Amino acid sequence: MAIKITGVGSYVPSNIQKNSDFNEHEFLNNDGSSIKQNNDVIIEKFKAITGIEERRYAEEHHTTSDLAFFAAEKAIADANIDPETLDYIIVGHNYGDIKHNSKQSDTVPSIGSRVKQRLGIKNPKCVAYDLLFGCPGWNEGVIHATSFIKSGIAKKCMIIGAEALSRVVDKHDRDSMIYSDGAGAIVLEEKTDEDGGIIAHETATHALDEAEFIYFGETYSPETADQNRYIKMYGRKVYEFALSKVPLAMKSCLDNSGYDIKDLKKILIHQANEKMDEAIVQRFYKLYDMEVPENIMPMTISNLGNSSVATIPTLLDLILKGKLEGHSINKGDVIMFASVGAGMNINAIVYKY
Amino acid sequence: MAIKITGVGSYVPSNIQKNSDFNEHEFLNNDGSSIKQNNDVIIEKFKAITGIEERRYAEEHHTTSDLAFFAAEKAIADANIDPETLDYIIVGHNYGDIKHNSKQSDTVPSIGSRVKQRLGIKNPKCVAYDLLFGCPGWNEGVIHATSFIKSGIAKKCMIIGAEALSRVVDKHDRDSMIYSDGAGAIVLEEKTDEDGGIIAHETATHALDEAEFIYFGETYSPETADQNRYIKMYGRKVYEFALSKVPLAMKSCLDNSGYDIKDLKKILIHQANEKMDEAIVQRFYKLYDMEVPENIMPMTISNLGNSSVATIPTLLDLILKGKLEGHSINKGDVIMFASVGAGMNINAIVYKY
Repeated sequence: MAIKITGVGSYVPSNIQKNSDFNEHEFLNNDGSSIKQNNDVIIEKFKAITGIEERRYAEEHHTTSDLAFFAAEKAIADANIDPETLDYIIVGHNYGDIKHNSKQSDTVPSIGSRVKQRLGIKNPKCVAYDLLFGCPGWNEGVIHATSFIKSGIAKKCMIIGAEALSRVVDKHDRDSMIYSDGAGAIVLEEKTDEDGGIIAHETATHALDEAEFIYFGETYSPETADQNRYIKMYGRKVYEFALSKVPLAMKSCLDNSGYDIKDLKKILIHQANEKMDEAIVQRFYKLYDMEVPENIMPMTISNLGNSSVATIPTLLDLILKGKLEGHSINKGDVIMFASVGAGMNINAIVYKY
Repeated sequence: MAIKITGVGSYVPSNIQKNSDFNEHEFLNNDGSSIKQNNDVIIEKFKAITGIEERRYAEEHHTTSDLAFFAAEKAIADANIDPETLDYIIVGHNYGDIKHNSKQSDTVPSIGSRVKQRLGIKNPKCVAYDLLFGCPGWNEGVIHATSFIKSGIAKKCMIIGAEALSRVVDKHDRDSMIYSDGAGAIVLEEKTDEDGGIIAHETATHALDEAEFIYFGETYSPETADQNRYIKMYGRKVYEFALSKVPLAMKSCLDNSGYDIKDLKKILIHQANEKMDEAIVQRFYKLYDMEVPENIMPMTISNLGNSSVATIPTLLDLILKGKLEGHSINKGDVIMFASVGAGMNINAIVYKY
């Protein structure tokens, strides 16, 4: 028995925000003081570290559940299944539906229920729920679905990652340039007469010292009457945490899979910061005394930014549909999904195509 | 092998809001028009239908994650386990942490991560996540944990239901009197040398016509500049939906359990409306051509209101600790947990003590 991805879809908003669109922002330090550099320099430095040149924002009339629905429709078409046969719709997100110009998260009903409604699914045995797990929420939904299939309560699941981080950014925070919007989805099915598929997975929650590394905080602007809170992070702490913990989790997952490091054809890693991702993968290979193989880590961050839970399924979709130049995944390839984010949560999955 | 509840805990806020505390509220119809009755009559009628005389509100300095932590501490003490041995902390809630006098939901990091941090748990293999599934979210967390144990990825899980609905009520809406705050938690463990425990479960999501029966909507007050949204429901539709669908789900679950209707000793049902709960249980027994047995359905709604996901684990805790007069659960008893709520979701679990 194998648990296999039978369809993939993603929705990348067409609304492009270039780095130059931030030229007029008043960036401040976290204590509200001015930054002693002009925006050209700030933005150049930002780009050099993160690799981000542009990102996507959802249309003003869309919310996260719309993006989720657009990706879900495509994954269902790609899998060529009757949506009524789905046992689960699992949606990873972090902030619910936030309307343009609103600051309130709408989480009732769940985004899963909204997507199920939009898909026109009648079957009440198709269970829809949402999962809050930081950026690794989509990976974790895949792990949930794997468990449901293994324990016999499901045969066919859709897992969606959808987020509109543009709705929770503080425009006075340089980190606002990181965040992006999007959605990706897969259909995961039990295939009794096949092999491969989900081979191993690994999850960790580091909360004792780390729970607030990514948090919901006030604007950096001291002069404003703005009482709203925004996505915030201690970037240096996140960076150091990720470098020390993610390679070990990836190794643990790969070793549990029974595959050799040399079998690994692609690593689809959460795209939060290009330099960080490169350093993580370097450390991972160093654990096996190896150099990083060429072309192992497909990247989308330069033009898609960090769309949280949407990043990995979108990346997978782009590769499988031949839309990411220089990258392909072929039958028999062993790949890894790896993510890190708020919680602080880490997870990894080894999958054989 | 059995999957058994080894510890239970709950937190009932001490801040009591009596029906008389709503005497001065200006209740309005959903179109903003005045209600042609004075508040005495409105409140009497409300009490006659729902059975609610008072409800509990969290202290102003607490949020949902505080309530979750208080209940979790007690469940761990009751189970007499080392919290470091937990494989999962699963938190069912719906609105995240909303500070008193704020309208923003704080969902990052997850409430699970916050609870894990407060419990001082270091073990990164203890995975903490949140589940959005309407009022049946705690039941659904128990079903997730059951699947994780059955599929071999967990042996010991804590499932918490925590909610502070007082933070999302529209004071112009009569339904505001329904909602309450609280938290309940259990520890669920694999017991290789025992029998009983979780026997069967059933879940349904009805979204096509029903997704917006419980929703996030504007205040009923037409004169206010208030742009915030609040918990809202189409009460009549929820009532009719629950009556037509919940008894069938309960029957399906019981029939799958292999137990006879006469084996059932208690039904712990979500407490949203006393008349609705009585009607559901009557219809359930009617499916077996039986009268409702006396004392089958313990109720807390008169003094605890509807605390969403917290209701059932709190009810269980009160019974097991001998704090609910006239009700007890003894070794060998077969009981059912049943819930219905936003999504619209329904679930039921048959458990043998």
